[in-house]
Amino acid sequence: MKEIKTIEFKEDILYLIDQRKLPLSYEIFECRTYRDVDFAITDMVVRGAPAIGATAAYGVVLAAREFLKEDKEKFLANMKEAMELLNRSRPTAVNLMWAIKKMKDLIEENKDLPVNEIYKKIKEEADTILKEDIETNKKMAKYGNQIVGKKATILTHCNTGALATAGFGTALGVVREAFYSGKDILVYADETRPRLQGGRLTAWELVQEGIPSKLIADSVAATLIRDGKIDLILVGADRIALNGDTANKIGTFMLSVLAKEYIVPFYIVAPTTTIDFDIETGKEIEIEERGSEEVTHIENIRIAPEGIDVYNPAFDVTPNENITGIITEKGIVKPPFKENILKLK
Amino acid sequence: MKEIKTIEFKEDILYLIDQRKLPLSYEIFECRTYRDVDFAITDMVVRGAPAIGATAAYGVVLAAREFLKEDKEKFLANMKEAMELLNRSRPTAVNLMWAIKKMKDLIEENKDLPVNEIYKKIKEEADTILKEDIETNKKMAKYGNQIVGKKATILTHCNTGALATAGFGTALGVVREAFYSGKDILVYADETRPRLQGGRLTAWELVQEGIPSKLIADSVAATLIRDGKIDLILVGADRIALNGDTANKIGTFMLSVLAKEYIVPFYIVAPTTTIDFDIETGKEIEIEERGSEEVTHIENIRIAPEGIDVYNPAFDVTPNENITGIITEKGIVKPPFKENILKLK
Repeated sequence: MKEIKTIEFKEDILYLIDQRKLPLSYEIFECRTYRDVDFAITDMVVRGAPAIGATAAYGVVLAAREFLKEDKEKFLANMKEAMELLNRSRPTAVNLMWAIKKMKDLIEENKDLPVNEIYKKIKEEADTILKEDIETNKKMAKYGNQIVGKKATILTHCNTGALATAGFGTALGVVREAFYSGKDILVYADETRPRLQGGRLTAWELVQEGIPSKLIADSVAATLIRDGKIDLILVGADRIALNGDTANKIGTFMLSVLAKEYIVPFYIVAPTTTIDFDIETGKEIEIEERGSEEVTHIENIRIAPEGIDVYNPAFDVTPNENITGIITEKGIVKPPFKENILKLK
Repeated sequence: MKEIKTIEFKEDILYLIDQRKLPLSYEIFECRTYRDVDFAITDMVVRGAPAIGATAAYGVVLAAREFLKEDKEKFLANMKEAMELLNRSRPTAVNLMWAIKKMKDLIEENKDLPVNEIYKKIKEEADTILKEDIETNKKMAKYGNQIVGKKATILTHCNTGALATAGFGTALGVVREAFYSGKDILVYADETRPRLQGGRLTAWELVQEGIPSKLIADSVAATLIRDGKIDLILVGADRIALNGDTANKIGTFMLSVLAKEYIVPFYIVAPTTTIDFDIETGKEIEIEERGSEEVTHIENIRIAPEGIDVYNPAFDVTPNENITGIITEKGIVKPPFKENILKLK
């Protein structure tokens, strides 16, 4: 198995695989300040909820490094400002807010320590978040692999692989685990318009590892599902409500309706950090609407006429009744979701 | 209303709007021989089943013009060869085969006339096909407009407008009629991957005419349908079986499942020339699989990694039970489809 180092921190520099450039070129983006990290998240050098969380944590490390020479008061004030900037870098990624909150709480708890001691704790915490995310993914992959047959055709949406996480992946982590445990796997990867994370990133990961796969336009999935060509659908999540309603990349809901109609198992694969215990249902999840140029342009080339309006929601919400189960690092959650999700808290 | 002259024949030259270039530039492609016409259809300078039919008819005219000086025997032999070439220019367009067969029958019936007389009949027939296609579209639009509310949000897929026909359009013709009859119309246009006929061509037609509209990625339609934002779905057809099963651009079937689940009227708009009276069900319709570069490249730029396999079916079949009705130039056909379709013969 090839290791994909989505996020790496060495000698005060954060190295990110530049996901804007894949698959055309493999480039490393270097962040030397927390402002670089803010830019990297906003401009989607890095994307995927767990990956954004770990990246933001190192943003906090870089800020602490920068303000190491300041007196305590100035250090704390500057850190607050830096964390607020990072927290705003993308609006919906739950794991971003989760990571920043973890850092805020850590600083608050240790505010009486000398600045360099606080810095050390921040650095340790970021390393832990990164390490634990990979371990979490591997645990999910083991649980997930239990529901994959010896010969299975799996449909995926968006990118949920090593590139979307600190490593290994969520839904694509299950695919990896199944493949490396010797199962006869075929993956159909939705290209996932408008940003083509499936075509650019998932396809790149699958080719890297030699996992048998076919790339499809998003609307092809419906016929495959109807015709019994898909054994299992695995998708990731951006936010999960208490009742199991799940916000994920636009197009996920469509797949869930077809899965229900044609009785194909439909699983969410996500760490418990993606569960928002503060919201009861998916109705409370705000759907980010992104710029029209994601639809009207590809690689800076215009593909739709000037003057056309665009509606471009980045996510949709899949209702819990369309979900067979949620694969987490603590096991597979089945209905009744609310009861069983609360047990994970 | 702006007139879009998709196909125009003047002084022995066939002028086509070059649909490969839209919406980036508006160019006219000139066909001076039937070989140019063959190229124009194959390379998709012109596309859309009715448009291809009329274009092929003029290909036969250009062939007859070229062989006008030959003796009868040579003329007939050359015409046969030219028509066979044109018939093969694209494999699934029903109207192409329909138009060529019409010309073949005409030549057969008139083979005892002098060559220049046969030529005149061929030219008249092509003019009739072009004229009747527009008239047919306008009749369909009138029937279709009967089911459009005074204020309606309509979802469309692919391009079914003036560019897909001799003029005016099928499904988009109904939209035009509704708009120009003063109704308060909003169109959601699926961009229609992989070839983006919605984003390139439908959006271009809508902008040209100032019809309020929004372009969406194909997977956005599902949420709009669920959330009650769509009053009516109108799509075209490439081939309709006797039982009403309809082959149309990939993605149509997905919309039909959502329409059925959330009880949104789902209509096919197509002339009776799109009905294949020789096949009982959609199972007999062969689905064209096209090249992988339609998915891996846009405007010659690679957007997916080298080495990835692609599955790229151009069409899917929507089962008759998902179809509310078929709007033709002879009226709106409702279930039971077979019984009512046979009445159109």
